[in-house]
Amino acid sequence: MDVGFVGLGSMGQPMARNLLRAGHHVTVWNRTRARAEALAGDGATVAGTPAEAARGGVVLTMVSDDRALEAVVSGPDGLLAGLPRGGLHVSMSTIGVATAERLLRGHEEAGRRLVSAPVFGRPDAAAAAKLSIVAAGREADITLARPLFEAMGRQVLVVGARPPEANLVKLAGNFLITAAIEGLAEATAVVAKGGVDRRKFLEVLLGTLFDAPVYRGYGSLLVEERFSPPGFALPLGIKDNRLLLEAGERLAVPLPLASLVRDRMLAALARGWGDLDWSVFARISAEEAGLSDAPRAASSGATSP
Amino acid sequence: MDVGFVGLGSMGQPMARNLLRAGHHVTVWNRTRARAEALAGDGATVAGTPAEAARGGVVLTMVSDDRALEAVVSGPDGLLAGLPRGGLHVSMSTIGVATAERLLRGHEEAGRRLVSAPVFGRPDAAAAAKLSIVAAGREADITLARPLFEAMGRQVLVVGARPPEANLVKLAGNFLITAAIEGLAEATAVVAKGGVDRRKFLEVLLGTLFDAPVYRGYGSLLVEERFSPPGFALPLGIKDNRLLLEAGERLAVPLPLASLVRDRMLAALARGWGDLDWSVFARISAEEAGLSDAPRAASSGATSP
Amino acid sequence: MDVGFVGLGSMGQPMARNLLRAGHHVTVWNRTRARAEALAGDGATVAGTPAEAARGGVVLTMVSDDRALEAVVSGPDGLLAGLPRGGLHVSMSTIGVATAERLLRGHEEAGRRLVSAPVFGRPDAAAAAKLSIVAAGREADITLARPLFEAMGRQVLVVGARPPEANLVKLAGNFLITAAIEGLAEATAVVAKGGVDRRKFLEVLLGTLFDAPVYRGYGSLLVEERFSPPGFALPLGIKDNRLLLEAGERLAVPLPLASLVRDRMLAALARGWGDLDWSVFARISAEEAGLSDAPRAASSGATSP
Amino acid sequence: MDVGFVGLGSMGQPMARNLLRAGHHVTVWNRTRARAEALAGDGATVAGTPAEAARGGVVLTMVSDDRALEAVVSGPDGLLAGLPRGGLHVSMSTIGVATAERLLRGHEEAGRRLVSAPVFGRPDAAAAAKLSIVAAGREADITLARPLFEAMGRQVLVVGARPPEANLVKLAGNFLITAAIEGLAEATAVVAKGGVDRRKFLEVLLGTLFDAPVYRGYGSLLVEERFSPPGFALPLGIKDNRLLLEAGERLAVPLPLASLVRDRMLAALARGWGDLDWSVFARISAEEAGLSDAPRAASSGATSP
Repeated sequence: MDVGFVGLGSMGQPMARNLLRAGHHVTVWNRTRARAEALAGDGATVAGTPAEAARGGVVLTMVSDDRALEAVVSGPDGLLAGLPRGGLHVSMSTIGVATAERLLRGHEEAGRRLVSAPVFGRPDAAAAAKLSIVAAGREADITLARPLFEAMGRQVLVVGARPPEANLVKLAGNFLITAAIEGLAEATAVVAKGGVDRRKFLEVLLGTLFDAPVYRGYGSLLVEERFSPPGFALPLGIKDNRLLLEAGERLAVPLPLASLVRDRMLAALARGWGDLDWSVFARISAEEAGLSDAPRAASSGATSP
Repeated sequence: MDVGFVGLGSMGQPMARNLLRAGHHVTVWNRTRARAEALAGDGATVAGTPAEAARGGVVLTMVSDDRALEAVVSGPDGLLAGLPRGGLHVSMSTIGVATAERLLRGHEEAGRRLVSAPVFGRPDAAAAAKLSIVAAGREADITLARPLFEAMGRQVLVVGARPPEANLVKLAGNFLITAAIEGLAEATAVVAKGGVDRRKFLEVLLGTLFDAPVYRGYGSLLVEERFSPPGFALPLGIKDNRLLLEAGERLAVPLPLASLVRDRMLAALARGWGDLDWSVFARISAEEAGLSDAPRAASSGATSP
Repeated sequence: MDVGFVGLGSMGQPMARNLLRAGHHVTVWNRTRARAEALAGDGATVAGTPAEAARGGVVLTMVSDDRALEAVVSGPDGLLAGLPRGGLHVSMSTIGVATAERLLRGHEEAGRRLVSAPVFGRPDAAAAAKLSIVAAGREADITLARPLFEAMGRQVLVVGARPPEANLVKLAGNFLITAAIEGLAEATAVVAKGGVDRRKFLEVLLGTLFDAPVYRGYGSLLVEERFSPPGFALPLGIKDNRLLLEAGERLAVPLPLASLVRDRMLAALARGWGDLDWSVFARISAEEAGLSDAPRAASSGATSP
Repeated sequence: MDVGFVGLGSMGQPMARNLLRAGHHVTVWNRTRARAEALAGDGATVAGTPAEAARGGVVLTMVSDDRALEAVVSGPDGLLAGLPRGGLHVSMSTIGVATAERLLRGHEEAGRRLVSAPVFGRPDAAAAAKLSIVAAGREADITLARPLFEAMGRQVLVVGARPPEANLVKLAGNFLITAAIEGLAEATAVVAKGGVDRRKFLEVLLGTLFDAPVYRGYGSLLVEERFSPPGFALPLGIKDNRLLLEAGERLAVPLPLASLVRDRMLAALARGWGDLDWSVFARISAEEAGLSDAPRAASSGATSP
C-alpha cells in the first residue's frame, strides 16, 4: 500500500520501518528532517511537508501530543491540505478525546475518513512489531488499515465505530496502569514499614491474583527503585492523566483515583523527578511513610521493563 | 500428624477435610457442633472444646475474625488452656496485625509457638486444595507445618520470621484487590459513558497489560453486574479494609487509596448492598457518573468467580 | 475619570452603574448591546466595539470567563486595538492564571499596563458597592485605579506587584469556600444520620469557632436545601475549580482537597443539577450516606444568601 | 450543689476550680493524687477513689480518652460503684460515640442518668470560664446540670435528648477544624508557590468570607509556622479523627475529607512531628509542593492561640 507516515519519534520510527519491511511504500515526514532521512535507507520517500506525505490517500500520524498533532494537521502545509477527499487518516498518537472529536468533525466536513488507533507498548515492542493496537472507526476503514496494523502490531482490538472511543480507551488503560502503581506503592510501603521484605511481598502478589505484566513490570521497578532511565517520563504521565480527567469532566464522570494519582504525580514533579520514569510517583507513598531509604535515586543504567 | 482444627466454616471445613484425605489425624471443633460432626464421617474426631482440640500439640485455627479468634483462644476451655508448652498454633484466619501481635506475645510468654498462615483463595480453591498459603514464623515451625500446608494448598509463600508479617501481607494483598476494583470501576464508568462497550474495554485490558486473575475475575463481575451470590460479602471487605487502615495507623503509613476504598464501601453499605459481593462498591462509580443502568441488581444465580 | 467598561452581566452592570454614580465618565460595551444601552439612561456612553471603549486610556473588563476575555481583548475590534500605549487595563473577571500571564505578556510587549482586580461578592454586593476587591499590579497603576475601586467596593486588598497573583488569590479563595462546603456536607451528613437535628448542629458551629460568613451563608443553604435559584451556578464552580487545579499543575502543587471537590461537583453535574447553586455538591455527601431526603429538590423561590 | 469531679488534667483542673469559685461543694479525684490535692486549697474535698467522688449523686468526668473513662467508670472503685441509683453522670470528655452508647446502656440498666457535655475551648478558655458546652440528655437532667455548666462556660448548646449525640457533634466539630486547616494548607501552598505573600493572603481571607476564629487562629499558626508548644498535640488529633471515622463506619457514612485529613496527619506523624500542634499536618501540603522552607521547625516559645 502507498501510505504516508508523519511523526518519527522513538515510537514512530520503528513503526514506519516495520511498514517498509512488510513491503509498503511509505512517504515519511518528521519535524526534524534528519529522522526522516534516516529511513530513506530502508526505502522510505522523504516528504517536504505533512501535506505531501498525505497526498497518496492514506496517512498515519504518531506524534507526541495534541498540540503536535494539531501542528501537523492544520495550516497550508498540513496533512489536511494534502489528504484528498475520501482519504483516510489513521491517528495513532495518544491524544485527548476533545482533540479527537475536533479532528473527526474536521474530517467529516471535508469528506475524509478517520480511524483512531492508539497503541499499548513501548519502543522495544514497536521495534518488534508487537504493539497492541486499539482501533475505532468505520468497519470499512479499519479493514483498509488492517494490513498496516498487522505489520506493526501483534493484535488489533476494535472497540467501536466512532474514532474518539479508541482514544478514550487508551487513556483509561493508561490510568489503570497508574492505579496499579498507586496500589503497589501503598501496599509495599505498609508491608515494608511492618518489617516485610518488599521482594518477598512482590513474589506473593505475582504468585497469586496479580500475575500480570503490569504488576510484574512496575512491581520490579518499585522494589528495585529503578526509575532511570525512564521508559515513559513523568511529564508524559501527567499529560495523559490530565487528558483522562478532562474526558471525565466533559462526560461528568468523577474519577477520584485518577485525581489521587494526579496529586501524587505533581508531588513527584515538585521533588524534581521530572526526568524519571512516570512510576516514580510511587516514592511519595514511601516518603510519606517516613521510609528513610525512599528518596535514594537509583544510579543504575538498566533499561526499564 | 495428629492435629487439631478449630473453625469449620465455608473455608475451614474443606481445609480440614483435605487434611483428613492426606492421612492426618484431625480433631475438630466448631462453635456450631453440627458442622464438626459432619466431618466425623471423613474420619475426624470431634472435640468438646477448643482446649481439647489443641491437646495434641499442633492446632490450626480458621475462624471469621479477630473477635472469633480471641473467643476460641482464651478462657478455661480455650485453645491456650489445652495447647501444651512447646506446642504449635497455626493461625490461618485473616486477622489484624495488632491481634496477631497480642497472640504472639501470649504464646511466647507461655513457651508456645505460633505460625501465621493466612490464605488466598475462596471456598472452591479450599475444596480443591489449591489455596495459596502465606506463612510467617520461625523456620523450624514452618517446616513442621509444611506437610499440613501441602495438603491444603498449591503453594506456600514464606514472607518472614515474625508471624504478624504474614497477616500484614494478607491484608495488603486484599487491599490490592480493592485497588484493582476501584481502578476498573472508574475506568469502565468513563469509557461506558463515552460510548464504549464495557465488554470490549475489558477485552482490551485482558489482552494487554492486565492479563491477571484479579482483572479477569472482578472485571467480568463488574461488566456483568453479577454481585449475587457474594463470593465474599461486603461487610467482610469493610472489616479487612479497616484492619489494613489500623495497621497503617499503628505504623504511621498514610494509605489514601485504601481510604478511598473505605468510603466507597461505606457508600455501598449505605445503599443497602451489605449482602452482595464486596466488589459491589464498583457501582458507586457508575452511579456517580449518572449511568442509569448502574443500580440494577443482578438476579442471576451464577456463582462468583 | 474617563473610563471604558467592558462586560455588563449581572456583576458588570451594577459595577459600571456605581462608577457613573461616583461621577466618572463611563464608555460601556457589551456583547448583547441592549445591556449597554440600559446604562445610557445612567449617563453611560455606548461604544460600538471593545476597542472604542478602551480608547480613553483606562478600561475595565468584567466578563464571564477566560474565553470571553480573550474574545473582547483580541482582534481588530478588540480592546488591545483601542487601548493606547501607556494605557491601563483593569481586569476584574475571575480568570485563570495562565490567561492572566498571557494577557500580561501581551500588554508588556505593547507598552501597556495591567492591574488584575478580581472581586469577592455577589450581584447584591456589587449593587451595594460592597465588593471586596483583590488587586495586584504596580503601585502606580493601583493608585490610578483606586478611585474606581472605591466607587465599586468596600475595600481594596493589594496582594502583590504582579497582576496574576491577584487571580491566583481569587481562585484560592473560591477553593476555600468549597472546602468549607465539603466539610459542612460531611459533618452534617454524619450528625444527621446519628440523629442530630442539622439546624442545631449549625447553631453549635456558628456559636463557636465557625462564626464566619462562609459557614453562616452556606450552612443555612445546606440545612434548608435551598439551592435554587442559584447564587452562583454549579458549572461556574466547576470552571473555577478547574482553573485552580490548572494553576496547581503549572506550579507543581498537589491539591487533594480541590480534587475531592472536583469529583463531588462532577457527581452533582451527572445528577442533572447543573442549574442549581454550586454548593449543591453538598448533597452528594448526604446521598452517599443514604439519607433518604437528600435528593429532594427545593422548590422555594427564596433568593440565595 | 454537692458534686464529684473526676479527671484534673489541663482542662479538668480549671473547670473544677470554677465550680468551687461558684460556691459548689466539689469532691475531686485524679489518678495522680497530687493534682487533686492542689485543689484542696481552693476548698475541694479529695476522694480516695472515683466511687467515693460519685457518692453524692452528681459526678462530672473530664478525662483524656475512652480508655481513661472506662478505667474510672468500671471496677470495684469505679464511679459506677459509687453513683447511687437515680444519680447523674455528666460526661464532659471527648470520647467516641460507641463508648458513649455503651456508657448510656450501663447507666440505663442501673437506673442512673447520663448527660454528655463535651466542650469547645482550650485550657485558657477553661480557666476563664469561657468554654462552649455542647450538651445532650434528658431535659430534666440538663436542667439539673445547668448551674454547673454556667460556672464553667460561656454558653450551653443543647443538641438532643440522647447523650451520644453531643459526643458526635463534638467529633464533627473537631473534624470541621481539620477541614479548615487542610483547606488553608493547600490554599496557602499554591498561592505561596505562585509568589504571593502568605500573610497578605491570610488578610484577604480574614477580610472577606473567612472572618472566623478557626481561620484567624489556625491561619496565623500556619503562616508563622508556630506549631510548638502544641495547643493540642498531633496524636490527640489523630485519635479524634479516628473516633469520627469510626462513627462514620458505624452509621455507614462515607467521610472522604476526614479520610484525607487522616492520611495527612499520619504523614506528619511519620515525619516525627508527634509532639507538635495537631495543625502541623498543614506542612505536608507545603512539603508536597516542594516549598523549601516548609520543614523548618519554629523555635519560638510563643503559646498557641
